[in-house]
Amino acid sequence: MTHDETRPPSNGRLNVGMVGYAFMGAAHSQAWRTAPRFFDLALRPAMTALCGRDRGKATAAAARLGWDSVETDWKELVSRDDIDLVDICTPGDTHAEIAIAALDAGKHVLCEKPLANTVEEAEAMVAAATRAEARGVRSMVGFTYRRVPAIVLARTLVEEGRIGEIRHIRAQYLQDWITDPEAPLAWRLQKDRAGSGALGDIGAHIVDLTQYITGQQISTVTGLMETFVKERPLPTEVGNLSGTGGTERGPVTVDDAAAFLARFTDGAVGVFEATRFATGRKNSIRIEVNGSRGSLAFDFEDMNVLQFYDETEDAATAGFRRISVTDPVHAYVGAWWPPGHGLGYEHGFTHQAVDLVTAIAAEEDPRPSFADGLAVQRVLAAVDTSATTGAWTPVD
Amino acid sequence: MTHDETRPPSNGRLNVGMVGYAFMGAAHSQAWRTAPRFFDLALRPAMTALCGRDRGKATAAAARLGWDSVETDWKELVSRDDIDLVDICTPGDTHAEIAIAALDAGKHVLCEKPLANTVEEAEAMVAAATRAEARGVRSMVGFTYRRVPAIVLARTLVEEGRIGEIRHIRAQYLQDWITDPEAPLAWRLQKDRAGSGALGDIGAHIVDLTQYITGQQISTVTGLMETFVKERPLPTEVGNLSGTGGTERGPVTVDDAAAFLARFTDGAVGVFEATRFATGRKNSIRIEVNGSRGSLAFDFEDMNVLQFYDETEDAATAGFRRISVTDPVHAYVGAWWPPGHGLGYEHGFTHQAVDLVTAIAAEEDPRPSFADGLAVQRVLAAVDTSATTGAWTPVD
Amino acid sequence: MTHDETRPPSNGRLNVGMVGYAFMGAAHSQAWRTAPRFFDLALRPAMTALCGRDRGKATAAAARLGWDSVETDWKELVSRDDIDLVDICTPGDTHAEIAIAALDAGKHVLCEKPLANTVEEAEAMVAAATRAEARGVRSMVGFTYRRVPAIVLARTLVEEGRIGEIRHIRAQYLQDWITDPEAPLAWRLQKDRAGSGALGDIGAHIVDLTQYITGQQISTVTGLMETFVKERPLPTEVGNLSGTGGTERGPVTVDDAAAFLARFTDGAVGVFEATRFATGRKNSIRIEVNGSRGSLAFDFEDMNVLQFYDETEDAATAGFRRISVTDPVHAYVGAWWPPGHGLGYEHGFTHQAVDLVTAIAAEEDPRPSFADGLAVQRVLAAVDTSATTGAWTPVD
Amino acid sequence: MTHDETRPPSNGRLNVGMVGYAFMGAAHSQAWRTAPRFFDLALRPAMTALCGRDRGKATAAAARLGWDSVETDWKELVSRDDIDLVDICTPGDTHAEIAIAALDAGKHVLCEKPLANTVEEAEAMVAAATRAEARGVRSMVGFTYRRVPAIVLARTLVEEGRIGEIRHIRAQYLQDWITDPEAPLAWRLQKDRAGSGALGDIGAHIVDLTQYITGQQISTVTGLMETFVKERPLPTEVGNLSGTGGTERGPVTVDDAAAFLARFTDGAVGVFEATRFATGRKNSIRIEVNGSRGSLAFDFEDMNVLQFYDETEDAATAGFRRISVTDPVHAYVGAWWPPGHGLGYEHGFTHQAVDLVTAIAAEEDPRPSFADGLAVQRVLAAVDTSATTGAWTPVD
Repeated sequence: MTHDETRPPSNGRLNVGMVGYAFMGAAHSQAWRTAPRFFDLALRPAMTALCGRDRGKATAAAARLGWDSVETDWKELVSRDDIDLVDICTPGDTHAEIAIAALDAGKHVLCEKPLANTVEEAEAMVAAATRAEARGVRSMVGFTYRRVPAIVLARTLVEEGRIGEIRHIRAQYLQDWITDPEAPLAWRLQKDRAGSGALGDIGAHIVDLTQYITGQQISTVTGLMETFVKERPLPTEVGNLSGTGGTERGPVTVDDAAAFLARFTDGAVGVFEATRFATGRKNSIRIEVNGSRGSLAFDFEDMNVLQFYDETEDAATAGFRRISVTDPVHAYVGAWWPPGHGLGYEHGFTHQAVDLVTAIAAEEDPRPSFADGLAVQRVLAAVDTSATTGAWTPVD
Repeated sequence: MTHDETRPPSNGRLNVGMVGYAFMGAAHSQAWRTAPRFFDLALRPAMTALCGRDRGKATAAAARLGWDSVETDWKELVSRDDIDLVDICTPGDTHAEIAIAALDAGKHVLCEKPLANTVEEAEAMVAAATRAEARGVRSMVGFTYRRVPAIVLARTLVEEGRIGEIRHIRAQYLQDWITDPEAPLAWRLQKDRAGSGALGDIGAHIVDLTQYITGQQISTVTGLMETFVKERPLPTEVGNLSGTGGTERGPVTVDDAAAFLARFTDGAVGVFEATRFATGRKNSIRIEVNGSRGSLAFDFEDMNVLQFYDETEDAATAGFRRISVTDPVHAYVGAWWPPGHGLGYEHGFTHQAVDLVTAIAAEEDPRPSFADGLAVQRVLAAVDTSATTGAWTPVD
Repeated sequence: MTHDETRPPSNGRLNVGMVGYAFMGAAHSQAWRTAPRFFDLALRPAMTALCGRDRGKATAAAARLGWDSVETDWKELVSRDDIDLVDICTPGDTHAEIAIAALDAGKHVLCEKPLANTVEEAEAMVAAATRAEARGVRSMVGFTYRRVPAIVLARTLVEEGRIGEIRHIRAQYLQDWITDPEAPLAWRLQKDRAGSGALGDIGAHIVDLTQYITGQQISTVTGLMETFVKERPLPTEVGNLSGTGGTERGPVTVDDAAAFLARFTDGAVGVFEATRFATGRKNSIRIEVNGSRGSLAFDFEDMNVLQFYDETEDAATAGFRRISVTDPVHAYVGAWWPPGHGLGYEHGFTHQAVDLVTAIAAEEDPRPSFADGLAVQRVLAAVDTSATTGAWTPVD
Repeated sequence: MTHDETRPPSNGRLNVGMVGYAFMGAAHSQAWRTAPRFFDLALRPAMTALCGRDRGKATAAAARLGWDSVETDWKELVSRDDIDLVDICTPGDTHAEIAIAALDAGKHVLCEKPLANTVEEAEAMVAAATRAEARGVRSMVGFTYRRVPAIVLARTLVEEGRIGEIRHIRAQYLQDWITDPEAPLAWRLQKDRAGSGALGDIGAHIVDLTQYITGQQISTVTGLMETFVKERPLPTEVGNLSGTGGTERGPVTVDDAAAFLARFTDGAVGVFEATRFATGRKNSIRIEVNGSRGSLAFDFEDMNVLQFYDETEDAATAGFRRISVTDPVHAYVGAWWPPGHGLGYEHGFTHQAVDLVTAIAAEEDPRPSFADGLAVQRVLAAVDTSATTGAWTPVD
């Protein structure tokens, strides 16, 4: 059964069913719980159902995270009449099947990134999203870093022409969580579950962010991928990137690190790097943009700050400004605390929930769309190809 | 009627009644809502009642913030049988009356800082807390910055002797919210409501933090207080430090800025400054401690970081370490996100709720106690006195 | 014999005689040697004579540092007909006698800071400078940090009104050179030689710098002084703040640290701290100025940078600008290297030599004058007095 | 005529003849002048002759920079009996001819980087250096950034194994000197004079530095080169990267920016970027190295600092240390100023002079050798090739 065009529902509620309840599930739960407390929303999200295969664990998670009911089969969730929105927080290999079914069932969908593990899956998802859109059913992919206020400011400054013609984009996503060769072979290190390693998991973010901030698309790439630790202990329990390893070992089938050069559609050149082996860097997302009129620099280690250089200023006083993006004039910030009271990692998820609910209520298509997610996927695929062939590879 | 010694209640719930619902009320609400979702608590806090004088506004606030019922008279709240804990988020001039009544009624109390507007009030509150303590009723004052993980680490390093004998403490709390002389005369700028200005509102934090981190007390001070803008527009609506001003003007009766020198009990010398006129500094709480074996530096503008210098290291590689206090080994952090995913301002309130609930469940007295709050108040009073007399003034 | 009004000498040379050849002597020598190579000077300084009591050591120093001749008695130096300028790089207790004699002998004088060890000496020096000035003989005190380009920019921005009405000045001079209690009792730790400790040696710099940058004078102060290590090994060889200690011990007769509050003539409040016990801080001179229109921040640990906040900017993009003061538009910089090629500590001395030579050639009085040095001395004396009496003490 | 094996000369002097007197000539002059004043040298360098084609300009430069005599033909200089060392500070297209002639004439040679404009020239220079070496004649290429104390510390930490097995190297050389499209077409923008643009001029430095620090060689690369501004005004006077442009225009024949991926001999992956279009970055040389035991980070904008992360530390206190490389324990630093008194750009040249003189006196071959310069050249050539072919290109 599918919903008809009556969405958004007239009762002012938006019943959410979430699939998965690990790291991302906890972040999304906090977002659904918090969004209506700080933001005026046209629809009130309700934490209606949590779905996980193991009933015991799912029930415990629902109690802890605050969901009203439990499902153990996502197909059941998708077919529930009282669910308006399906929030997909599972590993990438399951995204396509769940999202397509949910959209076809008339449910709005929020899908964690990466959109899918392959371009083919992502294309099928975009097709489903296009079909759904015609019926007023919305879809969004969870590139939450777009919702960091400093990133929104970066986008705005580019749009306003404050940076001028963009020449350089350099982006790094640096972690060090698995530099220890005894860290276990978690699902994120298995190609069949995760699709790829650092490239797809964290590289996807900087591809999306740079395309979002600059308004340009990556057109061609050449890259490399590297697996520094080829074998790891098999995990004795399910983990994210942590967990405990046993005595047996298995091969790491994804990349520990990836790097690539890129050319953008409007002439900028880009240098990208994503790695889980940057010892000492915990979650450093660094983005710099150099243009003819100015520059921007961001580092998620200082996430409430945007650096901005205005070339049009007097040479005597020009300098990178450390903008504390905590003033109420900035996106989302007015709903929170006074100036100087910084936000944290999870706030991006709350902003994402706000934007999605707002779009649904306004009967508009939210961004980043599945098409945006596919665009990222195509860049990642091109990088992967180029890492094999050694040649510059066009995107698409 | 008063509760007997059966607290903590056997049903595993802790029913909270909160007085006030402005800036602090929103922060506390988020804390009560969030704490049980991320931390394993022996008692489950329930958002039972919100209290505010204007029923319409209070009702709207309760709906927005998620409280189950509304009271318009705090005396009613305090007398409700189903309330286990009273959370006081009102201006300082009301703290003593509410807190004493609540404690005497057998309710646990969490009271926002400053504990009171005068030493006398604070002393009466400590007396009430002492009486209550004998009956197993707990009290705590809301110096939430103690709950920033980087601050806990600072305290731990001092306790472990990593800093050695402390020589220097310098602390600044810098804001710029009212540098505009047309900013209205909000209640925080009125001595009868707020007690004092920058000194009591923000200076209180750095007094508490430095005493907490070093484990030393300030013994004597000499200071100055200054009001740069003597008159301001009367506010046309109630505001915090913002709001809108009208055409009438009134005198600013509190300090815009305060600074003082201090000597600590164990020989350290301190330099303190609190101001709302540090143009460009939004909420910069800077603390540095220099000791015989090392140094610490903290700035709330980069709240997930502690700087640590270890003098015992080899001279060739010694340097201030930028510790990203986002690793699960740090206080509170394991309940949240992976390394490098920073926390924000409000997390301190959640940690405060966690610690208070945990202490209540364990039948232990939480810190900072009302006595800790009184200790801060005595320092502030001595600074105030010295600013008038021009002489060094002992604390107490 | 004295020079008549024919100075500056017609031959285009300026013959320098330098007294002392330790740390400051080396810095001054590099300045005299380098200034004419990078700057167009109206007079060409010549390194004519070096004066030191021990002929052997002085001769070796002259050879190493590049001086043409040697004197062992400063009175001989001062009476030499071929000396145009006497450059005093000795401990503070000798400044007055040498400077007065040199000025009275018609020699221009550059005197290291602090101008003298007592206000009385400094006053006598100012009197001599005034007498000399009438005859066209110039004098300057060596507050070289005024010649750091970032400091000049700070001064300029204040003069241009970019900071507006100044409210706050906070200044720290932090070192850690003698945190080791076994560091020897060098002359700088002996009151009879050095006059005072951290206060006079390094505190003098931040007093001068803040008065220079703001154009305001300190009018009243209250302070404290502290000697953390009361006894130290007597040095077995002459040292600066380093050297080797023996088994005998002597009392430290100067302050290890000083701190004071200040009020400035035009209403600003100041907080100052000078210490040699700030573990991990090597030579950190930090100055912040907050005004109604903007703020400035400087740290000598990043000496080629000035931070500037412009309150008049749009709230969305206002932020402290990190100005790399290495562009040719800045004071002195055009004579050196391209943008981004930073200067070092010693360049301030070269700039000082340039400014002094330029003033002499132009028959103008250079700044900072002996009167400026006396003004600093009076502040230090007031701090010293207040540290004894515990009372606010007017300057002068 | 050629010198025989009697070098180093018995008289303890080392007579230097310098070719060129622009930016590099000024820096080298300061080095020759300063080195013997701060360092104990076994040979005393003398500034014997300056060589430039225009006698008037060369004579003026010699006077300003302090050289004893002038030559207008480098062949004359090379044949002078009294010259021991030829210091080549001319554009890259002249290096090979002068250096080979000088070496064959038995003169020690210091040659500015890049060693040559082509690999072929560089190979011929290495051959000449090898011939000369057999006769005790020394040669060195001027990668002065190796002489920054923080870089030496980086090299030392790698050698000591403190970083462990190296996985990542990222290096950027960012300038913004010619972002203005009206900046004139200086010789550095002409391929026939400069060989290449950003790649050869500034990219050469980061290639050399990363190979030096890691002790690894780049084995294969793929890169891109871009010229953002295709035409510029022809200069009306000779300039470096500045100068004045006229109304006529000419094509820019070198790259404005270059970027490349690299694989190193021992398994590390590298990401490199060199550009003159990084708006707001004046001379930012950033190098990061991530290894299995630790990490390093350097930025020339803060040249007296090395960041070091030690993975073997306790997780609770590990963090990037900001090492102020101004302590006398560090290379070169003991000869200069006390801790915290930073060095500037030009000090690297003085250190270079010291090391070269020391090697000559010790009859040892200095580094970086011409072979090191050739190694850099081969990397640059491979990048150039790959930028044309689009394929990974082996070095050599």
